[in-house]
Amino acid sequence: MKARVTVTLKNGVLDPQGKAIEGALGALGFSGIGGVRQGKVFDIELDGRDAAAARTDLAAMCEKLLANTVIENYSIEIL
Amino acid sequence: MKARVTVTLKNGVLDPQGKAIEGALGALGFSGIGGVRQGKVFDIELDGRDAAAARTDLAAMCEKLLANTVIENYSIEIL
Repeated sequence: MKARVTVTLKNGVLDPQGKAIEGALGALGFSGIGGVRQGKVFDIELDGRDAAAARTDLAAMCEKLLANTVIENYSIEIL
Repeated sequence: MKARVTVTLKNGVLDPQGKAIEGALGALGFSGIGGVRQGKVFDIELDGRDAAAARTDLAAMCEKLLANTVIENYSIEIL
């Protein structure tokens, strides 16, 4: 079973990397960009188990390792 | 208009970061993990334009800055 975990910064948390990308896109001639926020994505391959159990495990992985829940949100998608 | 660009490593490209995460999850007691690949996600806010034009612009941004198309794939999603 494949799952995708997306980790993004919470609203209000400064994102200097996103700001830098926004500046670089402007410098490359792209206009009309209101903002860029960068996050991380993890494609995880899990050995056979049902979707509910996988989702529980993935949430535990996010809480323990993949996301810093003080400043980041995560979302889990079973593919 | 909001868009999400996801950049992932192509199949066959080594992903030491993903391997390290896989090892760390194993050390934390999570079992049955077949593999982890890490990628990047960009949430981009674009000033009003139609979806087709936005998609063209976003593809150009990926080719020029956001993705290294030698080793990475990108996908564009208009939200």
